[in-house]
Amino acid sequence: MTGVRRDTKWWGWGDAEKRQPLSGSARAMLAELGAGETERPAPALEEVELSAATELPATVVEAAGAGNVLTGAEDRVRHATGSSYPDLIRRRSGRLETPDAVVVTEDETAVRAVLEACTRERIAVVPFGGGTSVVGGVDPIRGEHGAVIALDLAPLRAVEVDRSSLLARLGAGLRGPEAEDALAPHGLTLGHFPQSFEYATIGGFAATRSAGQASSGYGRFDDLVASARMIAPAGDLETLRTSHTAAGPSLLQVALGSEGALGVITEVTARVRPAPEARRYEAWMAADFESACELVRALAQDGALPDVIRLSDREETRVSLAMAGTGGAGRRAFDLYLRARRRSEGCLIIAGYEGSSEAVSRRRALGARGFRFGGAAYLGRKPGAAWRHGRYDGPYLRDELLDAGLMAETLETSHVWSALDGHYRAVGDAIRGALEDQGTPGIVMCHLSHAYRDGASLYYTFIAPQRAGNELEQWRAVKTAACEAIVAQRGTITHHHAVGRDHAPYMGSEVGELGVELLRTLKEGADPAGIMNPGKLVPG
Amino acid sequence: MTGVRRDTKWWGWGDAEKRQPLSGSARAMLAELGAGETERPAPALEEVELSAATELPATVVEAAGAGNVLTGAEDRVRHATGSSYPDLIRRRSGRLETPDAVVVTEDETAVRAVLEACTRERIAVVPFGGGTSVVGGVDPIRGEHGAVIALDLAPLRAVEVDRSSLLARLGAGLRGPEAEDALAPHGLTLGHFPQSFEYATIGGFAATRSAGQASSGYGRFDDLVASARMIAPAGDLETLRTSHTAAGPSLLQVALGSEGALGVITEVTARVRPAPEARRYEAWMAADFESACELVRALAQDGALPDVIRLSDREETRVSLAMAGTGGAGRRAFDLYLRARRRSEGCLIIAGYEGSSEAVSRRRALGARGFRFGGAAYLGRKPGAAWRHGRYDGPYLRDELLDAGLMAETLETSHVWSALDGHYRAVGDAIRGALEDQGTPGIVMCHLSHAYRDGASLYYTFIAPQRAGNELEQWRAVKTAACEAIVAQRGTITHHHAVGRDHAPYMGSEVGELGVELLRTLKEGADPAGIMNPGKLVPG
Repeated sequence: MTGVRRDTKWWGWGDAEKRQPLSGSARAMLAELGAGETERPAPALEEVELSAATELPATVVEAAGAGNVLTGAEDRVRHATGSSYPDLIRRRSGRLETPDAVVVTEDETAVRAVLEACTRERIAVVPFGGGTSVVGGVDPIRGEHGAVIALDLAPLRAVEVDRSSLLARLGAGLRGPEAEDALAPHGLTLGHFPQSFEYATIGGFAATRSAGQASSGYGRFDDLVASARMIAPAGDLETLRTSHTAAGPSLLQVALGSEGALGVITEVTARVRPAPEARRYEAWMAADFESACELVRALAQDGALPDVIRLSDREETRVSLAMAGTGGAGRRAFDLYLRARRRSEGCLIIAGYEGSSEAVSRRRALGARGFRFGGAAYLGRKPGAAWRHGRYDGPYLRDELLDAGLMAETLETSHVWSALDGHYRAVGDAIRGALEDQGTPGIVMCHLSHAYRDGASLYYTFIAPQRAGNELEQWRAVKTAACEAIVAQRGTITHHHAVGRDHAPYMGSEVGELGVELLRTLKEGADPAGIMNPGKLVPG
Repeated sequence: MTGVRRDTKWWGWGDAEKRQPLSGSARAMLAELGAGETERPAPALEEVELSAATELPATVVEAAGAGNVLTGAEDRVRHATGSSYPDLIRRRSGRLETPDAVVVTEDETAVRAVLEACTRERIAVVPFGGGTSVVGGVDPIRGEHGAVIALDLAPLRAVEVDRSSLLARLGAGLRGPEAEDALAPHGLTLGHFPQSFEYATIGGFAATRSAGQASSGYGRFDDLVASARMIAPAGDLETLRTSHTAAGPSLLQVALGSEGALGVITEVTARVRPAPEARRYEAWMAADFESACELVRALAQDGALPDVIRLSDREETRVSLAMAGTGGAGRRAFDLYLRARRRSEGCLIIAGYEGSSEAVSRRRALGARGFRFGGAAYLGRKPGAAWRHGRYDGPYLRDELLDAGLMAETLETSHVWSALDGHYRAVGDAIRGALEDQGTPGIVMCHLSHAYRDGASLYYTFIAPQRAGNELEQWRAVKTAACEAIVAQRGTITHHHAVGRDHAPYMGSEVGELGVELLRTLKEGADPAGIMNPGKLVPG
């Protein structure tokens, strides 16, 4: 009984039994890209060739407890990557770099003991939660060390509720639904619902500055954390459990976003809310992305934002409706809208309100006034409910696209409102251009979400035929073009996916020379031997 | 024309012409404490004996420009302390430790040049804004260096507005009203109104994590800052101008609260708001502090907080009404309230709403429902308007109290709701106990402000007869007792006054051993020679 999890697809996303078959209209649309000609299903686990494993020093095994050190192929494979498109390509390729062992830590004492032994023996440590990183955040990189372990935090499952302060201690190993299940009997919710919700963990949310789909209402995860505990090789950091302090630079905001490179976040005390009595999700349609952005800006700046706000550009609107199939509620409402307005295109907006019935009704009225004033047309609640129902399904769909020989990847950035439209165009153009350069023109779509008074996040999805045999090279070319465009625009390289391995080369542009130096300095202070998650966050 | 300011009382607070004479009822109340028997006015500036000044190395003078190096008595005195009670005692004592020189920096290039020269010559640098620190944040401590300068940032006055993103670049040297004056023509406000508003600067707000009286509505200053520029001896840190990023630990939240110990914050890009079309300030009265705290908690957790919320305990209510005099609107309303309820005591609540007329009216209705539900009685708008009118006058009143031979000091902390009542009692008891131990029992009062979903700040004021000749010893005994009680309760040592010199010894309790080590590490990275504001923030 080590508590390690083996309940997901090793080669793809989530529940091994769940599929998200493509609709007829989706197949037709993707056929135009050249999909479906070569089905490329994943190999069997037994067929995967793993990197040779180095045996761990006895002191590390002893520190962990022998029963907590797993070296079997399945466990090593399950801890070999996160869940990005290149990760899936690597998993499907039949050859995989894996950690030398998976070490499961039962409690903070065990974490401390393992970090101590690994520091002494110079073994690299990759803290591992849900394995849902899409930026190479859990890649088993040894760095200059003799071996690398994945430190699985699944057994860290503390839950303790302070009802009157609306705070809950939550262990790093709890998955999203497990945290919600623990809070539900208290009538509480965390309100943190990123697309990875079903499998990602509290520790991962904290270490990566995750933002959920309802962040406009409940706050991003870095807002939700009142305090955190982090065990580093150099000692423990426990920030004070208080609503606010002015006692110097925020070490809480240093622990948040530390991505396992400083230490292991073992638990947080999170701000929770009464579970919503009512929910209202609905859809609106705007004519074009630019004017719809202005509409969302006005809502944000008037304090009238819904808890969930998500504005798709025309391309994403077209594609999501095609993916939903001709029978979908969104499709029907959209067709009616287009016919009524004699238009052929539009931009779908999803708006969601949660809370007491009275607050939902009051806030929805305020929001609806803003949507109408901004020129959007109401499409009703069905497309909103449909979106909410399918809100975690994107990654399942991606597995189908990969099976069909397609590249499907996402990336996100953010910028201030005055620069947003230029940023939107520049990053989209860069992705489109790079796909064309690869000889694989594809679909590039975007939505605005996580709106603030001063700006918003832009989330891009792109789908294109794979360059079979050169998938990683193709991916890297497109990713690099997007990152370079983002950096050139002075937007952020990541709004909520974190840095990991993929974005580390851009940290110099993001935080400047002194910024990188301060990150290195922090790492040296917390992790003098440099064993914590090598190759992530801090550029080499 | 160096741009240095000489427009305030050198021995006390603010406008040299403005006094805040004590009302008759205040004099009567204070007479009971033993005030007024020995008037102790400040000496003349010429009478003050200054510490001997060390001449600055020529390279430092050259880097600053000779005209920007001030060594006259008045300038040295004006930059000798902040504005805490012990600072005023030192100023009035007739003997003063001052910086060896005041260096005025005209722009970022000058700041860079001066820091470089001071690093080379090992001269300590105290960044200086409004001089309103109440925690010894600008004390001219040389540390291990040969001399110490106050680096006056008054000329850093950049203003640049991004209307559509509701952002404004604001130079570190702008005082609160200057920033507001620059924003007003754009129809904007920063909404940051701490008691020090009239004299404190943007740079100081950022360096100390200041919180204004309307922080529930507009946010604390660390919420208001979208990005910052900090010039450190090791280089420049400029954080990205974006609403949010997940790119690693927040270096913005490291610069905020850095208290001049890492570098010089030269400007911030701040989140601003449309100037309010309407304001409504009003007063409510609750029977006791404990139930009124529950009322505020309910408002905070229901999202129904006013922009300003301030709940005085019975003692503060009694004293503020006495201070206001018998003719005050608050006094009259309070008397009516007590008569109607056949009570002799109550707790005054000030609630303020700002924004569009429609929003003020909507939010006020929501708040009023909460106040009534919580058992508070409405006292009308006059006491609210009176509070707003006098919101910056506290420090003027303190000067009068010092003239009358009284100690008058404030301190603040915060805690989560579940611990707040115990914290309130423990800290109050510690202050009362220490005053009694000093043989100077006094008035100890408190208000709750800056309420959050998970907790709130407690702000204590205490007034007692001075132990003439031993004022600093007396103050230290009471301050130490309060700090030790705060630390024992696991509350924060400061909610918005920062660390400075006075709270530095408690940083180990606040952030733990590794936390202190990380702060040291950050300081070494940004300021390898350790010249920046020695003796503040990081414990020795």
